[in-house]
Amino acid sequence: MNTAAVNTTGAPPAEPWSPAELEARLRAVGEEHYHHRHPFNIRMHSGDLSQAELRRWIVNRFHYQRHIPVKDALITAKLPTSELRRRWLRRIQDHDGPQEGEGGIERWLRLGEAAGLDRETLLRADSVLPGVRLAVDGYVNFCRLRSPLEAVAASLTELSAPDLMRTRIDAFERHYQWIEPEGLAYFRARVSQGRRDSREALDLVLSWARSREEQESAVAALRFKCDVLWSLLDAVDRAGRREQA
Amino acid sequence: MNTAAVNTTGAPPAEPWSPAELEARLRAVGEEHYHHRHPFNIRMHSGDLSQAELRRWIVNRFHYQRHIPVKDALITAKLPTSELRRRWLRRIQDHDGPQEGEGGIERWLRLGEAAGLDRETLLRADSVLPGVRLAVDGYVNFCRLRSPLEAVAASLTELSAPDLMRTRIDAFERHYQWIEPEGLAYFRARVSQGRRDSREALDLVLSWARSREEQESAVAALRFKCDVLWSLLDAVDRAGRREQA
Repeated sequence: MNTAAVNTTGAPPAEPWSPAELEARLRAVGEEHYHHRHPFNIRMHSGDLSQAELRRWIVNRFHYQRHIPVKDALITAKLPTSELRRRWLRRIQDHDGPQEGEGGIERWLRLGEAAGLDRETLLRADSVLPGVRLAVDGYVNFCRLRSPLEAVAASLTELSAPDLMRTRIDAFERHYQWIEPEGLAYFRARVSQGRRDSREALDLVLSWARSREEQESAVAALRFKCDVLWSLLDAVDRAGRREQA
Repeated sequence: MNTAAVNTTGAPPAEPWSPAELEARLRAVGEEHYHHRHPFNIRMHSGDLSQAELRRWIVNRFHYQRHIPVKDALITAKLPTSELRRRWLRRIQDHDGPQEGEGGIERWLRLGEAAGLDRETLLRADSVLPGVRLAVDGYVNFCRLRSPLEAVAASLTELSAPDLMRTRIDAFERHYQWIEPEGLAYFRARVSQGRRDSREALDLVLSWARSREEQESAVAALRFKCDVLWSLLDAVDRAGRREQA
């Protein structure tokens, strides 16, 4: 699916950015639009969420977490060589675990348990909000339908994730001591996994996006992904305000 | 995508088959329609192929081989639990290898080299026949678009593959001694991998296909997959006859 804009102006195509310029533009998208700036996230990290709000976030964010290996399998199916697929497969394994009882999805279930939610509630997913379902479906379908470049570029929110994870671990330890500390294992694991994954994806994007059109599609893909994460928090935030109203 | 037939006869839905009956029907499809009966395969195993014919088959079948991890990644994306995905991921690893220079795709490249083809020729794929491209695309899209049950059932040609592999190893050792014996490593590895994979997929199909409609869709999926493999050999066979004409 070629989604690049068709040049109808008759003007010569724009010069490509240098790799450094493209990287700077990608990082700027994360700086401006990643969900670390979302009001709900700011309240979370300031210790202002009630137990009900934090549990609502955990249940709804789990709907996103459990779809990560799905979108990564769809990306794997787009990669043209054994070497690239092998690298991307590691991401699926990070979330599904090398065996039962391990991996990121299991760690998120334990975060839920540490916050007083039973895993059946998380797995049943019947309280997942419509806006969260739409955001997650949107992201999975983006990875299903777009170019390998766009699908990989969308993963570059990982550039911003490790810092967020460290702030979150501090915030949880300080403000939400009712959550058992071993519940934070997911966040701890993501600090190094996110660094490694984002470095790898950034290298791919910088080497694949050669024309200006491709570079712009990569920046737009990352912006789209920021919108997905932002919309997820919007839905969780609004649900809380509706309940209080 | 629900592709099951709609019942417009007003008759009550047919009784489901027992698991044993479903298994017997699946095995019967393999017995009748798997490509072990294809004239080209019979000629291959009787030692009647010329060097050019055998090389043509290796180049064209490689186009199928290199798409196996793609269809398996698409199946992985359809599986609902970490446990199921973890099992299916192993198939991708079998073909892509745990590291560079290993795995089924690499072993097939070495088969090509043992038969005097350089790997660039195989990787370039510019002599892959149109009928082979269509067959492979058809199979990949089947796994992309159909239900998890149908995509997994289509893999059940593996029920017939280990016997074929053993016959093939014997035939190659006897009739095609111009192929270096270490080139046969792919076939050797598939004997045990195929047994394990088919047992696992058969268990899934027998447990998932509960209604008669689902059971019939599984049988049809396996029949479709046999048609894919048969069409691939048809294309290779016809190309040879055109050349001789």
